[in-house]
Amino acid sequence: MKIKILTLFPKMFEGFVNESIIKRAIDKNVCSIEIIDIRDYSLEKHKHVDDTPCGGGRGMVLAVDVVHRCLLDNSSSNSHVVMMTPQGSKYNQEKALELKEKEELVLLCGHYEGFDERIRKYVDEEISIGDYVLTGGEIPAMVISDSVIRLLDNAITKQSHEDDSFSNGLLEYPQYTRPIEYDGMRVPEVLLNGNHKLINEFRKKESLRKTYLKRPDLLENYNFSKEEEKLIEIIKKEIGE
Amino acid sequence: MKIKILTLFPKMFEGFVNESIIKRAIDKNVCSIEIIDIRDYSLEKHKHVDDTPCGGGRGMVLAVDVVHRCLLDNSSSNSHVVMMTPQGSKYNQEKALELKEKEELVLLCGHYEGFDERIRKYVDEEISIGDYVLTGGEIPAMVISDSVIRLLDNAITKQSHEDDSFSNGLLEYPQYTRPIEYDGMRVPEVLLNGNHKLINEFRKKESLRKTYLKRPDLLENYNFSKEEEKLIEIIKKEIGE
Repeated sequence: MKIKILTLFPKMFEGFVNESIIKRAIDKNVCSIEIIDIRDYSLEKHKHVDDTPCGGGRGMVLAVDVVHRCLLDNSSSNSHVVMMTPQGSKYNQEKALELKEKEELVLLCGHYEGFDERIRKYVDEEISIGDYVLTGGEIPAMVISDSVIRLLDNAITKQSHEDDSFSNGLLEYPQYTRPIEYDGMRVPEVLLNGNHKLINEFRKKESLRKTYLKRPDLLENYNFSKEEEKLIEIIKKEIGE
Repeated sequence: MKIKILTLFPKMFEGFVNESIIKRAIDKNVCSIEIIDIRDYSLEKHKHVDDTPCGGGRGMVLAVDVVHRCLLDNSSSNSHVVMMTPQGSKYNQEKALELKEKEELVLLCGHYEGFDERIRKYVDEEISIGDYVLTGGEIPAMVISDSVIRLLDNAITKQSHEDDSFSNGLLEYPQYTRPIEYDGMRVPEVLLNGNHKLINEFRKKESLRKTYLKRPDLLENYNFSKEEEKLIEIIKKEIGE
């Protein structure tokens, strides 16, 4: 997969592409990331990319012609162009799984003060990573790249994402490692006795319990197995419902 | 405000703290950001911070003792300790406004393969930035820092965030700038005639229209003024409802 990020702040991505899993995925040729400076597409001497808003008001608005030239030069019929904006559709794991199938993702980072409405004509999709306001689309572009890249074959071990929160519809079960006893807290005995049937049951139950207590909305459309139905009843009794 | 970010990948933040609004806010003493390497708190010769999961399974689990030492050394009674995890409560603009009042924020970045459940005892709050899975808590820590810092006094001009999407309960109105005509698309005439009453009315109406079409959920608990009630009726007629 090829990812191109179109931004006014290319340096913001230095740490992101040179560290951790993203770096490893690039080194293993699982994907490539190219950071493109929108400013290079300004025709002005001083490389301005924005102008005052029509109708007045404070702040500067990113111009449609500059962005359009940048998009024309950096996308093809195989590209899926995504604009990061608080007005986009809400990003979730399902969308990450959908985007990972694209051949080339072009991520257009919005401008913190606003962008010309007509830019919307040139994008395939608008995505919001959540109901909060950020200074720009740069961090959202990292969110999308990171969540998509880790789903690509060979980026991380397969089991890692099969156990993810959300990927089976439930929150992940609690994990423990040494020391067995710390600050008065002990690893649950069942995890220490090597009985894998009991360990699996414990994990399934605690995964259900977490989801029930913290994110009951995830259970609304969940397909419970017979075993899980029984476990949920036990959990309800345990917590006094 | 003081922000401390506790992470296994300190280099990931290089671009973030050296660019854009965050850099300007640091330079203006609006806030400080300190990046702390959790690995420095490992007592092992090889600086390991994780170990295999109790009860088996793939992946490595971040150890409770290392994180606890790191937190003890980097927080005080004035700190608000937040752990970034997909299991936390959902982040939104309201939470950003709440966090901006804290004297010191300590953001603990989770580990992509999991962390010892007992770490939860040492944090004040768990936050998730959305229903998707990332390789670690680093990008979420940037989301929180960025969204909070821009709300601090003197970080950006005040009007900038009064106009934000979500901050008045609606999506932002469409913005335009030169060129007036581009690729067959023209800036709406009302924005070009200098009549500020009409311009304000246009913006209010288009802000309502966008919200109604793209995020009707935001209108469910919205307090409509008399004028807005009338505008919504006009919008419904215009779109044929």
